[in-house]
Amino acid sequence: MARLQQAIDPDRLLTDPADCWAYGYDNSRRHVCPQAVAFPFNTEEVAGLVHACRELGLPLVGRGRGSGTAGAAVPIRRGLVISLERMDRIIEINADDRLAIVEAGVTNGDLQRALEREGFFWPPDPTSADYCSVGGNLACNAAGPRAVKYGTPRDNILGLTAVTGTGDIIRTGVHTTKGVVGYDLTRLMVGSEGTLGIITQATLKITPKPEARRTLRAVYTSMTTAAAAVSRIMAQPVTPCMLEFIDGRAIDMIRDYASVDLPEDAGAMLMIEVDGSLEQLAYSEQAVAEAARGDGLSELRTAASEDERQGLWAARKALSPAQRKIAPKKINEDVVVPVSRMADLIAGLDQLSRQYGIIIVNFGHAGNGNIHVNLLVDPDDPKQMAVVDECLQKVFQLVLDLRGTLSGEHGIGYDKRQFVGLEIEPASLALMKQIKKQFDPDGLLNPGKLFPDVVPD
Amino acid sequence: MARLQQAIDPDRLLTDPADCWAYGYDNSRRHVCPQAVAFPFNTEEVAGLVHACRELGLPLVGRGRGSGTAGAAVPIRRGLVISLERMDRIIEINADDRLAIVEAGVTNGDLQRALEREGFFWPPDPTSADYCSVGGNLACNAAGPRAVKYGTPRDNILGLTAVTGTGDIIRTGVHTTKGVVGYDLTRLMVGSEGTLGIITQATLKITPKPEARRTLRAVYTSMTTAAAAVSRIMAQPVTPCMLEFIDGRAIDMIRDYASVDLPEDAGAMLMIEVDGSLEQLAYSEQAVAEAARGDGLSELRTAASEDERQGLWAARKALSPAQRKIAPKKINEDVVVPVSRMADLIAGLDQLSRQYGIIIVNFGHAGNGNIHVNLLVDPDDPKQMAVVDECLQKVFQLVLDLRGTLSGEHGIGYDKRQFVGLEIEPASLALMKQIKKQFDPDGLLNPGKLFPDVVPD
Repeated sequence: MARLQQAIDPDRLLTDPADCWAYGYDNSRRHVCPQAVAFPFNTEEVAGLVHACRELGLPLVGRGRGSGTAGAAVPIRRGLVISLERMDRIIEINADDRLAIVEAGVTNGDLQRALEREGFFWPPDPTSADYCSVGGNLACNAAGPRAVKYGTPRDNILGLTAVTGTGDIIRTGVHTTKGVVGYDLTRLMVGSEGTLGIITQATLKITPKPEARRTLRAVYTSMTTAAAAVSRIMAQPVTPCMLEFIDGRAIDMIRDYASVDLPEDAGAMLMIEVDGSLEQLAYSEQAVAEAARGDGLSELRTAASEDERQGLWAARKALSPAQRKIAPKKINEDVVVPVSRMADLIAGLDQLSRQYGIIIVNFGHAGNGNIHVNLLVDPDDPKQMAVVDECLQKVFQLVLDLRGTLSGEHGIGYDKRQFVGLEIEPASLALMKQIKKQFDPDGLLNPGKLFPDVVPD
Repeated sequence: MARLQQAIDPDRLLTDPADCWAYGYDNSRRHVCPQAVAFPFNTEEVAGLVHACRELGLPLVGRGRGSGTAGAAVPIRRGLVISLERMDRIIEINADDRLAIVEAGVTNGDLQRALEREGFFWPPDPTSADYCSVGGNLACNAAGPRAVKYGTPRDNILGLTAVTGTGDIIRTGVHTTKGVVGYDLTRLMVGSEGTLGIITQATLKITPKPEARRTLRAVYTSMTTAAAAVSRIMAQPVTPCMLEFIDGRAIDMIRDYASVDLPEDAGAMLMIEVDGSLEQLAYSEQAVAEAARGDGLSELRTAASEDERQGLWAARKALSPAQRKIAPKKINEDVVVPVSRMADLIAGLDQLSRQYGIIIVNFGHAGNGNIHVNLLVDPDDPKQMAVVDECLQKVFQLVLDLRGTLSGEHGIGYDKRQFVGLEIEPASLALMKQIKKQFDPDGLLNPGKLFPDVVPD
């Protein structure tokens, strides 16, 4: 502790377990109390802390706001948590150059509000946008519904500053939308979940805010027909800024929980939004509506006002509380399949649900094929608990057989690391580990995360 | 040679220097004749060749079509050139999933024609699109005018297959537009100029083709007013699909060479294109035209037909032959600055031009701030040749002082490697070299490229 206090003002270092407690969890509901928590003011202080940890052989975990769901921010080997929450300055918003320079600890919400005043936004919009940090978004490549049109953090970053496991400060990338000098360390860091370095500052690509948006809700008699509609929507030139779906089981669950205004024969539902200038919106709406029409469509509604928009979203928004009520300990996976294989995935999940006796509810970002697969398990049911791991394994195998990937936006963290080997072949995995070793020779940065072969704790 | 013949059918291995000659150059006009050239049919053959080279300690260079301008494809240490030209199959075009799977040797032009039949395109559009290969585009992150709206190869790839320097075959990335499992090896390979592996296959993100486009030409009295217009255009929500500029000196040069229809007071010119649906195009054109209007605008014209479009482009197209006539050995750089600093860059270049007595002509992709800086040197003028290196160094320093980068789309290759250290700090450069060592422990892959500290050949 004395050594850590040399690296940072003792006022900004917690060591009492009671104080450290809150920095040991994230939204994975996992918890390990760190030995200390530091609140650096700048990159140099982060570097000083890393140097101290290196001398002490102390593991360290960078922390945004702990909103991740895969356990990436949980200090499973204890050690030091470096919370970036006091590094929350917006250093520059530059409309002419379409960029913003921010410290990693700024919340996504604060950034969006500052950008909005200049007529801009930063596309990544995780559900937790109001309280999650930009640094955390980058570390986990966390996205949201807007990714279908505007991409993920990886697509909306120009460069960053980070501290590696050797305590070196690196500045990667550029201040421009083009650049090809050296290797792309920027995107190597994005999604690396704090295992290669602590991101302290980022140069973000920002986008002019569209004038307006229009919301449509399309209800289909079956998941297959809804999935076909998604393919039609994505194959025409007007890309929606949001294309969300929920499956029939989710609709049933909403009905049980709340009275919502949905057709009786609803087997799946799409929420679609388009954005753009007022003059262009009518055409975009029409193009998307036309693509949405087809086999199995039972209702297509457009919101004419913000009130009507809220009405259309009400059914979707009732889903999360409905699920929490039925299965407070549900397992929420975050798989992705090519858009054209979504119906196959849902059919396969339906079969696994019946085979293992576990209710599976699916919804998510249809335009990216990014589906949140919710296994509504009851931890007190020994029959379910005996098969849930096998069921999960089968879910992942199904996803991979459909050319999908195991995580779209939640990441690997601690919870999914034993499945990484299903997707990534040994040669690539070996390279990733070798890269990790170059950035973090002592293995201090977020140990036990992302890679499959750690000894289970 | 016997060992190489074990790795590939002797019919597809050239060893006679006369045959190998043509595989020793690229568009940098540099030439070194390789010792052998192989034409593999598939990834496994590439891996076999790499294994053979490893046993022999023979350097190897992957080659697309040799259209790069920085010398990346020139086998400066001789050894084996692996030409991908026989791996030119389009394996899959999947409109529903917005992806195409291709072998690395397919030309950009062939791919675009095949995609067009399905109503799609792949955004990267280097000038050499008709004959350059997709693998080469990826290896160099080569882009073109469309990047301003649609991004570079890095933004339009989902995954790839490559052979590393150990002969291992790696498959990176996903078949989906989202995915965060492990480190982003895909974008690490893109732009690495064959120093980390030979890209043999790629899964590309494809985009639905817009229905139509509209072309505008805006002429300004000065570069400063034109640059301000670029900033205004890029700060509003309708992003043009092309925003090119040429400076006043280039306009003068065109006038000397051809009779073109441009106002007398032209000090800079912008070519602007917008694309989209027919219904939306009028609005887009109006939004961009409005942003183009302002201080210093001396003429704004819109093409109403394809003929008129050709007419507007004629002046721009006359530039390359005009330059070649005046300075056949011109030095063409490819720098990028933030859009708002373009006027400063042009002013600074103007001053360097006067200081060193070298005519500098600038044009390029204004929407990205990506400027092709052409030093019209005469190699027979000893006075110019004595100062050209110093002048270039000053050009790069100016670019970096304006927060720019040394290359936007041409890459580093051999020609720019001694300047890399100006932009990339030692800690990042050290990491890049360490990464290189993991992919290519024997240093066989495209040796002498991209990194600054090689012994000059």
